[in-house]
Amino acid sequence: MTQPLVISIDAMGGDHGPPVVIPAVVSATKSLPEDVRFLLHGDETVIAAALAKHRDAAQRVEIRHAERVIAMDEKPAQALRRGKGTSMWAAVEAVREGQAVAAVSAGNTGAMVAISKLILRMIGDLERPALVTSIPTPSGVTTFLDAGANIDCDAERLVEFAIMGEAYHRAALGVAKPTVGLLNVGSEEMKGHEEVREANRILREGRIDLDYRGFVEGDDITRGCVDVIVTDGFTGNVALKAMEGAGRFMVAELRSALSSGLMATLGALLARSALLKFRERLSPPPAAPLLGLNGLVVKCHGGASERDFAMAIRLAVDLARSDFSAEIERNMRRLPDALAEPAPAPTIEASPTEGAAQGASE
Amino acid sequence: MTQPLVISIDAMGGDHGPPVVIPAVVSATKSLPEDVRFLLHGDETVIAAALAKHRDAAQRVEIRHAERVIAMDEKPAQALRRGKGTSMWAAVEAVREGQAVAAVSAGNTGAMVAISKLILRMIGDLERPALVTSIPTPSGVTTFLDAGANIDCDAERLVEFAIMGEAYHRAALGVAKPTVGLLNVGSEEMKGHEEVREANRILREGRIDLDYRGFVEGDDITRGCVDVIVTDGFTGNVALKAMEGAGRFMVAELRSALSSGLMATLGALLARSALLKFRERLSPPPAAPLLGLNGLVVKCHGGASERDFAMAIRLAVDLARSDFSAEIERNMRRLPDALAEPAPAPTIEASPTEGAAQGASE
Repeated sequence: MTQPLVISIDAMGGDHGPPVVIPAVVSATKSLPEDVRFLLHGDETVIAAALAKHRDAAQRVEIRHAERVIAMDEKPAQALRRGKGTSMWAAVEAVREGQAVAAVSAGNTGAMVAISKLILRMIGDLERPALVTSIPTPSGVTTFLDAGANIDCDAERLVEFAIMGEAYHRAALGVAKPTVGLLNVGSEEMKGHEEVREANRILREGRIDLDYRGFVEGDDITRGCVDVIVTDGFTGNVALKAMEGAGRFMVAELRSALSSGLMATLGALLARSALLKFRERLSPPPAAPLLGLNGLVVKCHGGASERDFAMAIRLAVDLARSDFSAEIERNMRRLPDALAEPAPAPTIEASPTEGAAQGASE
Repeated sequence: MTQPLVISIDAMGGDHGPPVVIPAVVSATKSLPEDVRFLLHGDETVIAAALAKHRDAAQRVEIRHAERVIAMDEKPAQALRRGKGTSMWAAVEAVREGQAVAAVSAGNTGAMVAISKLILRMIGDLERPALVTSIPTPSGVTTFLDAGANIDCDAERLVEFAIMGEAYHRAALGVAKPTVGLLNVGSEEMKGHEEVREANRILREGRIDLDYRGFVEGDDITRGCVDVIVTDGFTGNVALKAMEGAGRFMVAELRSALSSGLMATLGALLARSALLKFRERLSPPPAAPLLGLNGLVVKCHGGASERDFAMAIRLAVDLARSDFSAEIERNMRRLPDALAEPAPAPTIEASPTEGAAQGASE
């Protein structure tokens, strides 16, 4: 007999809470194998009532009562102080205690990052978790991080993101040697601010086992010229939301363009199913894992629908079955060496390596 | 008799140079009034040859020979050192000398910013020019800056951009009191890095005559909830290119969705003209003015087509006829006061104002 695979769920998180989360769990149980089971953290009475009509699902669920909930506008520091005993805290704690392989929540992002970091701790010497997301491209997906967990990022953080993102892409998508790019405002070496230029230098040195391809630009995110694109959480969050907004605007424009005139309307009716497929393909992914933790945490967006939350659960199951955490750990071991000053002068004998140009070229 | 309105053009700039620029000038002369005339800077022989077949246009053009051209990958510092005598330098110099009301170039952006700043100098105490662009929204356009002229921006730069962008929106679009937002990763006051929080504080203080509405997010760029959106040139450039890439991806996806299956193809044929209108509406603007200079400079994108460059010329003419520079100057006078420390304690008597919370709340 195989061990059951248990997913720990914050049943109260998100804009909607149990009315969305519980039906999502019920729907997920239908498509996931028998060995996937759930811990639901939150108000016992509410959860039990919502499960009453679903006997099959209820048999795969264990309810853990949690008295309190972290509010969507609570600050991270506040969430850390008073988080114990909340449904989110309990959901993450179950992962640390080995009772579940992953935690899923649609709650407050900042609180979730802070609580996960405190409870699970970072892998090795990693500093902060990163939110990773997948963007559709003509040929597949771009793994994009940080999606907004880290506002201020120095060069070391960006290098960490490159390692985490590459390991994630390999584990989640089965690409043996993913290519990596650093987001910048141009492809020339002298472009960008100090942090990206320094991260570029470290990655170029090649002491980390990464297929690093240099700088990429904003329009490369949907182009698929590299597998993994790395940026700070401020730029990443703005770029993702800008693309999401552009997508929404385009769908609205398209709808209005297609309803002007009889022929256009007729055309749109005929092309209806093709257009639906198009919209489907462009919806932003509803969930993103937090990378770099000793344990798997999946963040579902706050306004998630039942379908979105069910997708987040399936993502957690898929990731739990992959070995991306081990991949990250393996690469992290190379980090301290990579961050060392380039080409230190050997004491006994000078090695005839190609001298790394260190000076700023301007 | 009215004075002619002269536009000074870098005929050699951009990826294509004269083969695109000269036909664009010829086409612009056809739609612009008789009093609009041109100074063309660049290789006299090449320009004269290209104009030979267009006698009407040639009569409204004066050629100024320039021996050299600034390369597209030249660094700003290098362009400043060896820029004198190039077509770009001469085009901007004609504005300073009052021979033209605006300069237009599709050349190297960094070089153009540096050269324009050196030759024309900034208005008042402004520090750096900003590239401003217009993004379509359901109800009109968003004025968005900085589009990439300034990679590192402190709070004062962001406040300057707010002043310049607001004045530009009023002058270019005739909106009496444009609303202004600051791009961030969330709308709550505690969100974002120090620079945006500090700029938010200065703008909130209300000592500058702006209708400031606080933080906006990436998806607000195409939503039109405020007229002017301000950010640093790194984030701005990435967001614009990300949206452009998303647009290109969507059009490609749409085309493929609409060609799958007979009904979809039939539908697409019928909706063809509506789809063309849709694409038209979504093309990114081909030209952007550099704000904050004592003189008008319009930057056309490097890969500009003949049609794009003609649009840049028309933009220069429209802006030359507006009074946006005077608008910027008027607002700039309020800046030193606005940047002063909030609510300085009076020496004689304490004023019973609501104490501005200055401490970080975390």
